[in-house]
Amino acid sequence: MGSKSDLHVMQDAADVLKELGVDYEITVVSAHRTPDRMFTYAREAAGRGIKVIIAGAGGAAHLPGMVASLTHLPVIGVPVKSNNSIDGWDSILSILQMPNGIPVATVALNAAKNAGILAAQIIATADENITKNLIAFKESLAQKVEESAREMEGL
Amino acid sequence: MGSKSDLHVMQDAADVLKELGVDYEITVVSAHRTPDRMFTYAREAAGRGIKVIIAGAGGAAHLPGMVASLTHLPVIGVPVKSNNSIDGWDSILSILQMPNGIPVATVALNAAKNAGILAAQIIATADENITKNLIAFKESLAQKVEESAREMEGL
Amino acid sequence: MGSKSDLHVMQDAADVLKELGVDYEITVVSAHRTPDRMFTYAREAAGRGIKVIIAGAGGAAHLPGMVASLTHLPVIGVPVKSNNSIDGWDSILSILQMPNGIPVATVALNAAKNAGILAAQIIATADENITKNLIAFKESLAQKVEESAREMEGL
Amino acid sequence: MGSKSDLHVMQDAADVLKELGVDYEITVVSAHRTPDRMFTYAREAAGRGIKVIIAGAGGAAHLPGMVASLTHLPVIGVPVKSNNSIDGWDSILSILQMPNGIPVATVALNAAKNAGILAAQIIATADENITKNLIAFKESLAQKVEESAREMEGL
Amino acid sequence: MGSKSDLHVMQDAADVLKELGVDYEITVVSAHRTPDRMFTYAREAAGRGIKVIIAGAGGAAHLPGMVASLTHLPVIGVPVKSNNSIDGWDSILSILQMPNGIPVATVALNAAKNAGILAAQIIATADENITKNLIAFKESLAQKVEESAREMEGL
Amino acid sequence: MGSKSDLHVMQDAADVLKELGVDYEITVVSAHRTPDRMFTYAREAAGRGIKVIIAGAGGAAHLPGMVASLTHLPVIGVPVKSNNSIDGWDSILSILQMPNGIPVATVALNAAKNAGILAAQIIATADENITKNLIAFKESLAQKVEESAREMEGL
Amino acid sequence: MGSKSDLHVMQDAADVLKELGVDYEITVVSAHRTPDRMFTYAREAAGRGIKVIIAGAGGAAHLPGMVASLTHLPVIGVPVKSNNSIDGWDSILSILQMPNGIPVATVALNAAKNAGILAAQIIATADENITKNLIAFKESLAQKVEESAREMEGL
Amino acid sequence: MGSKSDLHVMQDAADVLKELGVDYEITVVSAHRTPDRMFTYAREAAGRGIKVIIAGAGGAAHLPGMVASLTHLPVIGVPVKSNNSIDGWDSILSILQMPNGIPVATVALNAAKNAGILAAQIIATADENITKNLIAFKESLAQKVEESAREMEGL
Repeated sequence: MGSKSDLHVMQDAADVLKELGVDYEITVVSAHRTPDRMFTYAREAAGRGIKVIIAGAGGAAHLPGMVASLTHLPVIGVPVKSNNSIDGWDSILSILQMPNGIPVATVALNAAKNAGILAAQIIATADENITKNLIAFKESLAQKVEESAREMEGL
Repeated sequence: MGSKSDLHVMQDAADVLKELGVDYEITVVSAHRTPDRMFTYAREAAGRGIKVIIAGAGGAAHLPGMVASLTHLPVIGVPVKSNNSIDGWDSILSILQMPNGIPVATVALNAAKNAGILAAQIIATADENITKNLIAFKESLAQKVEESAREMEGL
Repeated sequence: MGSKSDLHVMQDAADVLKELGVDYEITVVSAHRTPDRMFTYAREAAGRGIKVIIAGAGGAAHLPGMVASLTHLPVIGVPVKSNNSIDGWDSILSILQMPNGIPVATVALNAAKNAGILAAQIIATADENITKNLIAFKESLAQKVEESAREMEGL
Repeated sequence: MGSKSDLHVMQDAADVLKELGVDYEITVVSAHRTPDRMFTYAREAAGRGIKVIIAGAGGAAHLPGMVASLTHLPVIGVPVKSNNSIDGWDSILSILQMPNGIPVATVALNAAKNAGILAAQIIATADENITKNLIAFKESLAQKVEESAREMEGL
Repeated sequence: MGSKSDLHVMQDAADVLKELGVDYEITVVSAHRTPDRMFTYAREAAGRGIKVIIAGAGGAAHLPGMVASLTHLPVIGVPVKSNNSIDGWDSILSILQMPNGIPVATVALNAAKNAGILAAQIIATADENITKNLIAFKESLAQKVEESAREMEGL
Repeated sequence: MGSKSDLHVMQDAADVLKELGVDYEITVVSAHRTPDRMFTYAREAAGRGIKVIIAGAGGAAHLPGMVASLTHLPVIGVPVKSNNSIDGWDSILSILQMPNGIPVATVALNAAKNAGILAAQIIATADENITKNLIAFKESLAQKVEESAREMEGL
Repeated sequence: MGSKSDLHVMQDAADVLKELGVDYEITVVSAHRTPDRMFTYAREAAGRGIKVIIAGAGGAAHLPGMVASLTHLPVIGVPVKSNNSIDGWDSILSILQMPNGIPVATVALNAAKNAGILAAQIIATADENITKNLIAFKESLAQKVEESAREMEGL
Repeated sequence: MGSKSDLHVMQDAADVLKELGVDYEITVVSAHRTPDRMFTYAREAAGRGIKVIIAGAGGAAHLPGMVASLTHLPVIGVPVKSNNSIDGWDSILSILQMPNGIPVATVALNAAKNAGILAAQIIATADENITKNLIAFKESLAQKVEESAREMEGL
């Protein structure tokens, strides 16, 4: 994440990765305040065995796109509605509108949980256990809705 | 893709997948006009050995999100600026702003090429040949810029 | 409605339908978390004697459009300004901008009350009692304004 | 419609109503240039046996909402992207964002065809023939997509 | 004003008109809930000696434009950011984007005070006393800024 | 107007003022390129017998607001969609969103014709001949719509 | 700054200028309420030895652009999200979208701190001491991120 | 500039710098395709005697902000409305909305000419010759407007 202040949003990614059985690490790398650190982190990630990078940032959010420019790994971008953001539009467009050649897999505003699930889906393309966890996770989503429905129809 | 009229955009995904050595199939599935076909397609994809689904659509673009709801595979969404779209905002928001639990990996407006590259990056997390192709592809992007720079400085 | 959390908005539809003498049922159906349930619900609605469906959802709101794709009944969409919505723009555009062939009758952001009135107007095209109720309802709206005017002019 | 210049958009409504077997009339009524004509038209519509009114207008599009305020019939609004419109946002918001009590069933920008289909769906709630036509119409939409799919897969 | 709930905004217009020595009346007229009352009010205003009409409304704000269609008097529109408004964009566009032939003199969001000043400026084109009041009012605005400046420079 | 390039838009104001029998003058005054000229023009306008000022400008359009700050006359602002404008949003917001104390009577994007009519309405508050011209003008608008209606119903 | 109410935002510029060793003065100048004061201030600034002007304003924010039209000094504009602003869009576009010939160096919404840093960077182009201060300032930014990273990795 | 395709916009900066007597160099550096080249270029600029950097880019435009993160020199950002841009909003917000600590002096959409003038203004804070050129340039702007005015008044 680009700043410690994004932790309240990005924690959701960590939580769902844990729930889905995916190993992860979490740190702070700022594109604008620590460009060298970002370079080193992104360039070395694949060599250290990292499979997917989730990058969250707000405002003029350059971290996801710059990381994507520095690695061949898939990069997931989480637009964060930070204090210096204009209703999140700046974060979304800065992350989403990457030029041809360097994609960022963008998820919804503040949707760190979905970033985690997407990372698990990517890992799962070659991992049967995580695939099973994802299928079970989807079933649990449906069950909660069906409980709500029964509750409401019983009103 | 949601409509044959999206082909002029979505063809870029097919072309770059071919260039990167990734096998693919291409078809038309409309969330709104052929919901049954979409159900069957999305439900059966994983069983047929599909690893990643790219879904492109315009306007109130429900195809990527609905496919994501019907499979545990990673789904990449391409917002298409179709004729009945409001400058692309409707396509982008309909694809990007998925609720927690069901991510869609959204790329830039009309960026089917980036969808193809992202799909290759996902496959490459467990495929060394495609990883090599991606690394070579990134190098060719840099070379083209450096040629432009030399040309312009020589102006 | 797409989620139990939409109830505080959607309750207004139920209340005004009751006031206007229209029978209704209310439940939770999520396009993304329970796609099968949505399919069954929408496909069977006409056969069960349902005349109009009101669907409310927020963010990338696919429920109204997907229900419309699965039934020939008129579908009314209520864009809900949920927590994961960008000021409601995503909900509005995801519901409103349906492609040709599959309309959704969209009402204002959070305007579940208007969805209820619209449903009553549709039923009333073939029901004289509800027509009378609607005419009385419109008169009561005017009376309240006229009371406000008298009160204010008397300031 | 609010102006003769909207005819190129609104003709689609007439065409699909004809295709679906629904009788209709078509005229020009301007909220701003002929307010008396609008009053008379909207007030007398129900008495003349009209079941549904489709109103299309652009810019600060007051026609659909004002007609809705003058009748208890369901009113469908078509936002028209006219020359003096700001990308259609003014038309959409002027029609969609009606206050509680007076709904307008809004369809997508320029989507007069969907307005016609929605009108047919409303009539069909009490008319079996039009219901059959609507079901056939939906089937023809699916068939066209399936043809596109076969064509594309055969590429 | 279109609703009693707009009074907290519109009161500013009354206050500044009083301060500038302009006679006024204040009432509630709803375009959508009391269209007949609006017709009568707007049609009779010039005959009763009214010189300028200020109309404030929120959401799909049709009151200013409809009043302008019913009178040859200048009409000033105040976009109100009401509860059912999307950040005020709907109110602004519904009032501002009038078609050629029927202008509404639109002021800033919630700027009822400016509507009052503008009304006074219009009356002042043929009234020397109000002209003097406006000149004095402008001088008082400048004096307040100069006091702020002295205060701040003395920090 | 702020630039000679705005003439194709602003000419409509001159034409309708002539049609309505209102005397006018037309010139170029740039807030940003000729601030002294703007100061002198705005400060001297009332003394020269000018009753209303129409100011049109595009992009960061400061001319209408600055003129309003320099005179007690009513100022009408025309947002012009110039080449360096972002779909007109910058022109509209720069003119409309004036702070309390200094109103600008804003009309629709490029609506110089409405600016002319509004100026005539302002003059007409103390001029019976122009009032008659305005009433005749409004009648001619209605007649054109009624002709369109007859034509279309005869289709 | 355009109003004393902008002080809570603009104070950040003063603070960072002090931190970076740049002399400054601070005052209130309103483009709309004190145009003469603005003229005098902007015209005399260069002669008094001022090197850079920072102007902050909200809503239809004309101060930065008008000051830029009156001086050849670089002018930095700070869009302020004031009470009468529409989410800051009006402030941003009124300051940013200046016509060719009269630039305003615009910073992010409410980013007075960045305005101060940019002013220091401009002064530093001919001042080695301030250059040293800027380099130290950048290093302190990086150190804070690295501390956050260590803290978080130690979680 | 970020891509050779931005040359048609960025050439204006070169032209006006030449006109104002400021030395410059021009090249292509892509944040996303040549991150190493960007690092080297930005890090070495100050040491090579560069005083100001102008960076133009479109879409998710990270070049200006990343260059600003890598140097203490003032960086001017030009949002370019490129083909893969959404009406320029993405370029503007990606460049403008920088976090506290790393400013980018943003100019209007496609306003490379203003970027050049701003660069000259920055250099001129310590260069009397360029100051003279800027004063002459401002006078020529005023003269052109006055010629337009005479021409138009003579119509």
